Amino acid sequence: MSMDTYPITIGKITRHAPLIEPLPGVRIPLVEIMGDVELVNAAAEALMPKVPAETEVLLTMETSPIVLAHVLAAKLNRPYIVVRRRRRPYMENPIIQEVESLTLGVGETLWLDRRMAEKLLNQKVALVSDVVSSGGTMAALERVAVRAGAKVVARLTAFRQGMPKIDVTYVSDLPILQAT
Amino acid sequence: MSMDTYPITIGKITRHAPLIEPLPGVRIPLVEIMGDVELVNAAAEALMPKVPAETEVLLTMETSPIVLAHVLAAKLNRPYIVVRRRRRPYMENPIIQEVESLTLGVGETLWLDRRMAEKLLNQKVALVSDVVSSGGTMAALERVAVRAGAKVVARLTAFRQGMPKIDVTYVSDLPILQAT
Repeated sequence: MSMDTYPITIGKITRHAPLIEPLPGVRIPLVEIMGDVELVNAAAEALMPKVPAETEVLLTMETSPIVLAHVLAAKLNRPYIVVRRRRRPYMENPIIQEVESLTLGVGETLWLDRRMAEKLLNQKVALVSDVVSSGGTMAALERVAVRAGAKVVARLTAFRQGMPKIDVTYVSDLPILQAT
Repeated sequence: MSMDTYPITIGKITRHAPLIEPLPGVRIPLVEIMGDVELVNAAAEALMPKVPAETEVLLTMETSPIVLAHVLAAKLNRPYIVVRRRRRPYMENPIIQEVESLTLGVGETLWLDRRMAEKLLNQKVALVSDVVSSGGTMAALERVAVRAGAKVVARLTAFRQGMPKIDVTYVSDLPILQAT
């Protein structure tokens, strides 16, 4: 099988991402930062100066942005918290938040254990994603933060794809291409 | 709510993990390395000398061990691959592997996209987990590696809990306690 690719650049790192066709007639590059130490480092370095100084906690969600949040948190010397996409057996009284998403279809749900939610109370939180497209998942993540009593001071993402319904701070734009 | 805790130590890092009761009469410490930059670093440092020199790729799975595999891969300057627990929309002809697990219940499945599987062919692979308990998930991960044509040279985990049905290389033992 031959596969077309599209060049993605962050900082000094370029990757040739495979093009996928999520809808008939539309092609987008499939960016995967998970598993790519150099790309994650480059994205974290590029996001560093965009993180508000007042940020106290980073908040991300399963799965692919976790490594970006981890590396960014390490560089900033700040804690980070991961919102889950499935209920875990140990969760008690979790925050449960539905996601409206065009790309993922219906039925996505975010879960945050109450013990984690308590760490967000009255904290200034920067949301961290890898790719924001419709903005539905990021909006749901923000809702989790607000419901936990946090103040959201930034919505950070490595890549913005198209025009999300919410404003995000991003490093690099991804195209939405016409299939030929 | 008061909560009993149990001290967990890796290297110079100690955490007071909450005790949970997964089965009546049995209590175990709930270790969460995801979100804990210092603990992940300590676990990666402790695992470093246990990784066979011949290792070419690290293989891990969603979700909590991903950050450990990422940091370990960065320190070793080796690539890593993440096996998913849900089918992703972009997957083509994935390897699908059922998990036998006492602690997670029935119905767990591992998924590895064919493009990722191809990177494992003829590679010497070290499996990476955070907590190995029954060993069911690690055994399924190994099966994915073998089905992809890899040779498994190590089964690494930060914590071993009880007596898994497979041999693992671990840093620290977690107890299985009687509830009182």
